[in-house]
Amino acid sequence: MERGEKLYEGKAKILYATTDPALVIQYFKDDATAFNAKKRGTIMDKGVVNNQISAHLFQLLEQQGVPTHFVKQLSDREMLVKRLEIIPLEVTMRNIVAGGMSRLLGLEEGIVLKQPVFEWHYKSDTLDDPLINDDHIFALGVATAQELARLRQQSEKVNTFLKAYFLQRNIDLVDFKLEFGRHKGGILLGDEISPDTCRFWEQGTKRKLDKDRFRRDLGDVEAAYQEMLNRVVGTPAAR
Amino acid sequence: MERGEKLYEGKAKILYATTDPALVIQYFKDDATAFNAKKRGTIMDKGVVNNQISAHLFQLLEQQGVPTHFVKQLSDREMLVKRLEIIPLEVTMRNIVAGGMSRLLGLEEGIVLKQPVFEWHYKSDTLDDPLINDDHIFALGVATAQELARLRQQSEKVNTFLKAYFLQRNIDLVDFKLEFGRHKGGILLGDEISPDTCRFWEQGTKRKLDKDRFRRDLGDVEAAYQEMLNRVVGTPAAR
Repeated sequence: MERGEKLYEGKAKILYATTDPALVIQYFKDDATAFNAKKRGTIMDKGVVNNQISAHLFQLLEQQGVPTHFVKQLSDREMLVKRLEIIPLEVTMRNIVAGGMSRLLGLEEGIVLKQPVFEWHYKSDTLDDPLINDDHIFALGVATAQELARLRQQSEKVNTFLKAYFLQRNIDLVDFKLEFGRHKGGILLGDEISPDTCRFWEQGTKRKLDKDRFRRDLGDVEAAYQEMLNRVVGTPAAR
Repeated sequence: MERGEKLYEGKAKILYATTDPALVIQYFKDDATAFNAKKRGTIMDKGVVNNQISAHLFQLLEQQGVPTHFVKQLSDREMLVKRLEIIPLEVTMRNIVAGGMSRLLGLEEGIVLKQPVFEWHYKSDTLDDPLINDDHIFALGVATAQELARLRQQSEKVNTFLKAYFLQRNIDLVDFKLEFGRHKGGILLGDEISPDTCRFWEQGTKRKLDKDRFRRDLGDVEAAYQEMLNRVVGTPAAR
């Protein structure tokens, strides 16, 4: 599958057309941004790591009955995916208080939630991806009630599966962000699942193995990404 | 009923104890604040107007089956109310885009919503009363799912009634804020309903008759409050 025209360049990925109008190539860059691109940098080989982690997790999720845009991995940095009409919402699922939720509610990072916290954010760089609710979504007209129900259900499935998967690898899945899109009448999980879009804490030590190392200048960023790759594709740790 | 000890002083009201531990006196001040008290001022006789408007509307809502904290008006600026254990949430109901919703979503003020937009805000001056969702409320532990369902249902009832009531008086009820509290095992509508807590636009002209005149330095603030009082207690306009 050869790269065609560049369709879209985002902060961490580029989408290229293919000869099949229903398929696109998702190219993973090393560019890292944080705080709505106010902070910029590079994480060496992040693109390679995130492509592999995402490919692995998308395949596992498909097996769990979560339809995704993943078709196959094409190269180190390229993934063939189904072309989506992106729904401009970010789903955030939280199992432990961190980041935005900590700031929003004045709660300390690390509080384990009794039940997962589900959030919609409106994808808008100019508005800073604000937290919104179902009624705002209907007012914006970006998704139907039926679609929201589907997104919620699929996100919960993803959380239940990934939480258990990472726990077996001695990682607490603190929170993560998902994006979805429409494709041939259905809704597919899109984007990526990686240390860019999830918070991963080593169990017990709470050592951060995700983009917070970059956001907060904690050092050892590349090593953390590599370690997560090894944990994701490796066999479960002895418990 | 004589005023006892001062129990609480807020931005616009003071609560005093009475000889009955289940009842308190709510005193309406002329102090006006906006933008989380970053802007301060006085609106002459606002306290008198808001006390009368609130008393009138609370009585009408009681007749509609919405239990409120209102017992009776004691004087120009004093209202006897049932003592509440305040639920630290503000309900915002919106029929037309304005204020916070306009800024949040980048939508123009004045867009008429196809269905009302319901919002929870967490009452916290230090956090700036953030917009939150049901899951955040459960994480904070400030209300149960059953209570939230009750608050929603009551708020919708209030909106349906008030919208029609003001329409008969040539006023569009743009949005409003409600607060609720627990009292003897039940949930009562508390606080006030006034030009401080609602946005009122004259039909057709969209002339603002509420605290936005103070927030945005539009002038004629006192006159707008007086006009709203006359409209609320007066008979419906000929249509």
